Amino acid sequence: MTEHLLDAPHHDGSALYAPAGAALGERVPVRVRVPVAGTERAVWLRTVRDGEPRLEQARLEQVTEHERWYVADVLVHNPVTSYRFVLDEPGGYRWLNGRGVHARDVPDAADFRLTAHEPAPAWLDSAFVYQVFPDRFARSTGHVGPPAGPVPEWARPVPWGTEPAAIGHDTFAQLFGGDLPGIESRLDHLQRLGVDTVYLTPVFPARSNHRYDASTFDHVDPLLGGDAALVSLSGALHARGMRLVGDLTTNHTGAGHEWFVRAQSDPASEEAGFYFRTEEAPGYVGWLEHASLPKLDWSAPGLPARMVEGPDSVIARWLREPYRLDGWRIDVANMTGRYGTQDLTHQVARTIRATMRAQNPDAVLVSEHFHDAGSDTGVGGWDVNMNYSAFTRPVWSWLVEPDSTLPFIGMPVSVPRRGGRSMVESMRDFDSAVPWSVTRHQWNMLASHDTARLRTVVGTRERAEVAAAMLFTYPGTPVVFAGDEGGLTGSNGEQSRASMPWDEIDAGGGPRWDAVTFEAYQRLAALRRSSGALRTGGLRWAVVTDDAVAFLRESPDERVLVLLARASWAGAALPGHLLEGSSAQNLYGGAELPLVDGALLLPTDGPGAQVWRLA
Amino acid sequence: MTEHLLDAPHHDGSALYAPAGAALGERVPVRVRVPVAGTERAVWLRTVRDGEPRLEQARLEQVTEHERWYVADVLVHNPVTSYRFVLDEPGGYRWLNGRGVHARDVPDAADFRLTAHEPAPAWLDSAFVYQVFPDRFARSTGHVGPPAGPVPEWARPVPWGTEPAAIGHDTFAQLFGGDLPGIESRLDHLQRLGVDTVYLTPVFPARSNHRYDASTFDHVDPLLGGDAALVSLSGALHARGMRLVGDLTTNHTGAGHEWFVRAQSDPASEEAGFYFRTEEAPGYVGWLEHASLPKLDWSAPGLPARMVEGPDSVIARWLREPYRLDGWRIDVANMTGRYGTQDLTHQVARTIRATMRAQNPDAVLVSEHFHDAGSDTGVGGWDVNMNYSAFTRPVWSWLVEPDSTLPFIGMPVSVPRRGGRSMVESMRDFDSAVPWSVTRHQWNMLASHDTARLRTVVGTRERAEVAAAMLFTYPGTPVVFAGDEGGLTGSNGEQSRASMPWDEIDAGGGPRWDAVTFEAYQRLAALRRSSGALRTGGLRWAVVTDDAVAFLRESPDERVLVLLARASWAGAALPGHLLEGSSAQNLYGGAELPLVDGALLLPTDGPGAQVWRLA
Repeated sequence: MTEHLLDAPHHDGSALYAPAGAALGERVPVRVRVPVAGTERAVWLRTVRDGEPRLEQARLEQVTEHERWYVADVLVHNPVTSYRFVLDEPGGYRWLNGRGVHARDVPDAADFRLTAHEPAPAWLDSAFVYQVFPDRFARSTGHVGPPAGPVPEWARPVPWGTEPAAIGHDTFAQLFGGDLPGIESRLDHLQRLGVDTVYLTPVFPARSNHRYDASTFDHVDPLLGGDAALVSLSGALHARGMRLVGDLTTNHTGAGHEWFVRAQSDPASEEAGFYFRTEEAPGYVGWLEHASLPKLDWSAPGLPARMVEGPDSVIARWLREPYRLDGWRIDVANMTGRYGTQDLTHQVARTIRATMRAQNPDAVLVSEHFHDAGSDTGVGGWDVNMNYSAFTRPVWSWLVEPDSTLPFIGMPVSVPRRGGRSMVESMRDFDSAVPWSVTRHQWNMLASHDTARLRTVVGTRERAEVAAAMLFTYPGTPVVFAGDEGGLTGSNGEQSRASMPWDEIDAGGGPRWDAVTFEAYQRLAALRRSSGALRTGGLRWAVVTDDAVAFLRESPDERVLVLLARASWAGAALPGHLLEGSSAQNLYGGAELPLVDGALLLPTDGPGAQVWRLA
Repeated sequence: MTEHLLDAPHHDGSALYAPAGAALGERVPVRVRVPVAGTERAVWLRTVRDGEPRLEQARLEQVTEHERWYVADVLVHNPVTSYRFVLDEPGGYRWLNGRGVHARDVPDAADFRLTAHEPAPAWLDSAFVYQVFPDRFARSTGHVGPPAGPVPEWARPVPWGTEPAAIGHDTFAQLFGGDLPGIESRLDHLQRLGVDTVYLTPVFPARSNHRYDASTFDHVDPLLGGDAALVSLSGALHARGMRLVGDLTTNHTGAGHEWFVRAQSDPASEEAGFYFRTEEAPGYVGWLEHASLPKLDWSAPGLPARMVEGPDSVIARWLREPYRLDGWRIDVANMTGRYGTQDLTHQVARTIRATMRAQNPDAVLVSEHFHDAGSDTGVGGWDVNMNYSAFTRPVWSWLVEPDSTLPFIGMPVSVPRRGGRSMVESMRDFDSAVPWSVTRHQWNMLASHDTARLRTVVGTRERAEVAAAMLFTYPGTPVVFAGDEGGLTGSNGEQSRASMPWDEIDAGGGPRWDAVTFEAYQRLAALRRSSGALRTGGLRWAVVTDDAVAFLRESPDERVLVLLARASWAGAALPGHLLEGSSAQNLYGGAELPLVDGALLLPTDGPGAQVWRLA
C-alpha cells in the first residue's frame, strides 16, 4: 500500500542540502541524506566542469538513528554547475539526480544545478501574486451598464457582469470598462485574501481588450485611466507594502503600434528594421501568423536600446519613479528573438535582466513559456517562468472532473484524467530541468487569463480546494488569477476573463461568488505565511498513489507534511520518527495524524487537503 | 513472458518514417505506425517552431491487416526542428517521442528531430572503422626486440609483445616502436576483417607514446616514419578503396608544442594569447590540471586561423594532397572552448566543419565526448560522437563478467552487471537526445585505447561475440579497437594498448590471439555488409528481458530480427505476421525461428547471437 519513497536517498537545492546561490570560483558544500537502511559503501559527488565530469568522494558528516548525511564540495567553476550523486552499492551503483534514484546511467538533463547567475529577488520567497486583467477587474465608476463615454472603434461596450464571449471577434472587442482606479479601489479585497503582489496584464493602449497588441509602450491606455492612474495605483500598492508587476510583449507589437506604423510608411526608417519582411502577404511575420501582431526582429541594431537596453528603454522607464513597477512578466518569451536561423532569446533575456538590475535590483523578470522552458530558464535572464508545464498541466490532469471534455491548454484533445503517479512524474520531469533556485520561485498557477477557470476544470468546490492547497504548499510562488478565489467559471481563456461580481463579493457570496472557496484561499494563504518550510523548504515525496499524494516540506527548523486526496483512498503509513519526538500539529484540514506502533497513519478521506507540522 | 513492445506505436528517423535530411523551409512527411489493436481516435503531429509548439492532424495513409500508418508534414523552419506525436485515445492522450510512449506530459528533450545541418558523409552508412594506436600496431622492421636507433629522451624502448604498463610513468614512456609503414604492411589483415576505414590516434611528434601532447601539428613524428610515411599509408589505403581518419587535440597542445614554447618565452607573442594564464602554478591551465597539456583559449583572435579556420589551418592542410585524410576525430571535444564563463565549443565545432567542407565535402568530423553529448551533437558541427554513453557503457553493463571488479570507465566504482532492461533504457535515453541522422552514424565502440579490453570486461569468448553482434547490428558505425577482433586483453586504457601479436596472427592463432573470435568478427562484418536494414534501417525493440534482448532493423525493403542473449533465458514469442508471408532466413548463429500457431518462437539458449531476415 505505502510507497516507500522516503526510503530513498534525497537531495534538493533547499537550505538543508545546498546554499541558495554561489559565486563563480566558490567551493560550496552540498549534502545528501541516506536512510540507515541504505547499503551504500560510499557516496560520490559528480560535478561537470567545463564539459567534463569530475568525481569526488563525499564525507560522512552526521549519523542519526535514522539517517546518514554526507557532504561534498561543489566548485562553482561555470555559470551553471551541474552535479549529482553516485551511491556505490553492492548490487551496482545508483545515481541520484533531480528525477530521483536510477540503477542505470542517465543523461545530464536532470542533474542538480548551482548557478552563479543572480537569483530572483528574495521577496519572491514569501510572495503571493494576484493576476489582474484590467478590463475585467473593477470599474472606478459605480454604474454597471455599458461603459459610458467615447470608446475606440475596435471596442464593443458591454455591461459589467456580461458573460465573456468564448469565441469569435467579440472575445477581443467586448469592453467591460474595468480600469486602474477600479483596481485601486479594491485593494482591501486583495489584502483580505493575503495578496502582496499584483501582476497586471498589459496596460498600454491597443486595439483589443487584452492589450497584447500595444500601439505604444510609452503611455497607459486612457481607457484605463492613463499614466496618472498607474502612478496612483502603484503608490497605493506600495503604501500598503505591496508590489506591482507589469506585462510586456517583446515578441511583437500591435499592428497599430507607432513603430510599426512608421515602419510601414517609411521603409527607410529605423523602425522598418524592427520587423521581419516577407514576400507573402501580409508582407511581414506575425505572431502565429496573426497580421495584427507583427513580430519584432531582435537583430535590428536600434531595437534593444528602444525596448530593453539601458535607462531610456521601455523596460527601464516603467521601473522608475513615478511608476515604480516591481518587475515585468514577458509575453511569449519562448518565441522572443527566435525566427528561423535566428535565436537571440537568451541574449534578449539577459539584456532585460541587466537593465532591470541597474534600475531596481529587486525587480523580478518572469517569462511566459507555456511549454518546456528548461533550456531557457536558470541560464541567466528570466528569473522564473509562468509554470504551466511543471504545475498547471499536471495538477489539472490529476484533479480534472472525470470525463471532462474541456480542451486541454493548447491541445486538440480534452484534459485527461490521470493518476497521482503521472502528475508527480511530470512535475519531477519538468522541475528537474531547472535549478532549484528557479523551482523555489516559479510562478505556479492553477489557471490564468489564457486558460479555462480552475473551478470549471475540476468541477467541484472540494477539488478546487485540493488544487489550491497544492498551490499554497508546493515550492514556488502562488499566482492566483483574480476571481478563482471565489470560484468563478469559464471554459476557455477568453470566457474565463469574467468581470468580478463585486455585488456578490460585497454581500459575502452569491450565485457566482463562492464565499467558502474564498475562505479556503484565505486560510491557505495564511498557512503559507505561517510556515517557513512551506515558503522555502525542500520537497520530499512521501506517498504517491493514484488518488492521493503526500509530500514533506522541510527547512532546517521545520518539517511540514502535506496530504492531498482527490477521492477517498486506501491510506498509507509513514515512519513515526518523522515527528522527532514531538507530536503532529494539524495546520489545515483538521484531521488527526495518529501515531500507532511507530507509524503515522494518514487519513483516508477525500477529496480534501491536510497539512501537519511534524517537527 | 513476452514483452509486447511491438504493440506500441513507432517512429524513428529511418527511411520508413522520415527523410534522411531536409533543407530549411522544406515541408517533409513523417510517418508513424500504429498497431491495429490501437485505440487512437486521431494522431497529431507536434512540432516546435521558433520555440512554440504547433499541432497538426496526421492523415491516415495506409491500413494493412496489422497496422495503420499515419503521415504528417514537418515544416523545417529552424535548423533543428523537433517533433513528436500525440495519440488521441479514450483513456487520455499519449505522447510518442524518442523514448517511447508516455501517458503523461514529458519535456522536449527526447523529441524526434529533423536537422537542416549538413549530414555526416554518406560513406558512414557502410563504414567499418578500425582504430589503430600507432606505437602498438605493427613495426615495419622485422625484429621484435626494443626499437633500435636513437629514441627521444621521454621514451623507454621495450620489446614487441611486452605487456603494457597499467599504471605509472611507464604507461606513457614505453616505446614499442610501431610505425606507419608497419600499418601499411598489414592492410591485408584489415581487409580480411572487412575494415574499410582506419582511425589513427595522433601521429604528431610528442613527448609520449600516445601523442595526445603534440609538439607540433605540422609534421608526422619521425618515429612513425615522418610525413612521407603518412602520404604512403594514405595512398595505400585509398588504392584499396579504404579511408583514413586522423586525430587532433583542439582542447590542448603538449607543453612541448612550438606554440606553447613561444608563448612561454615571449609573453608578447601571438601564441601567448593561445593559452589561459593563471596566478597559481604552473601559471597556465592544463587539461584536468596536467601541466603537460596546456589548454587552448579559443577566444584568442589568431588561434582559429592557425588551427581550424580556412585553407591554411591544421584542420584543412592534412585533408589535402598529399595526405588526404578523410576526416578528423577531435580529442576532448566536450571541453574544447569551455572554460569558466567561456563556452565556444559549438562555434569551434562549426568552424571546423565549415573548413572541412570547403576542403573535402566527404570528410567526417567525430567528437570525443565520453558523457552526455546530447547538447553538443546534431546542432551543426560534430557529425557524430565516440559513443560511449549510448553504446559502450550500457553494453558493458549488460555483458560484463559477473562479479567483475574492473573499474568502470572514469568512475570510482566497478562495472555493474545490470539487466537488459537497464541497458535498453540507457541506450534509448542517450540515443533520444540526438537526431536520428546522428544515431545512424554514431561511432559505436566496445572498447578503445582509453578503456579496458572488451574480452577482459566480458570475460569469455561467448559474451564477446554477443557484444560484437550488437556492435555490427545496432544503428551506428562499428568501430573496433585493433586487437579486440582477436580477443586481446587489458584491464585499463593503458594496459589495453597491447602490441598486436603478429606471430600468432600469421600462425592462425595462439595463446594471445583467438582465431575463433576473429572469425566471428569477420562473419559479423560480412553480415552487416550483406544487409541494408542492418546498415541503415530503423530500430524497433521487440523483446527486452534481463538476459535477452531482440530488436528489428527495418528498411523499406528488408526486415531483420536480431536476438542477443547473455545467458539461457525463458524465450519469447513474436507475431508471425512479421514474416509477411515469407519464411525466416537465418543470417547468423544458425538457429531456427519456428512459426508455431502464428507465433515466431525465439530460441532460449545463450550466451549467443542470432540474426534472421524475416522479410
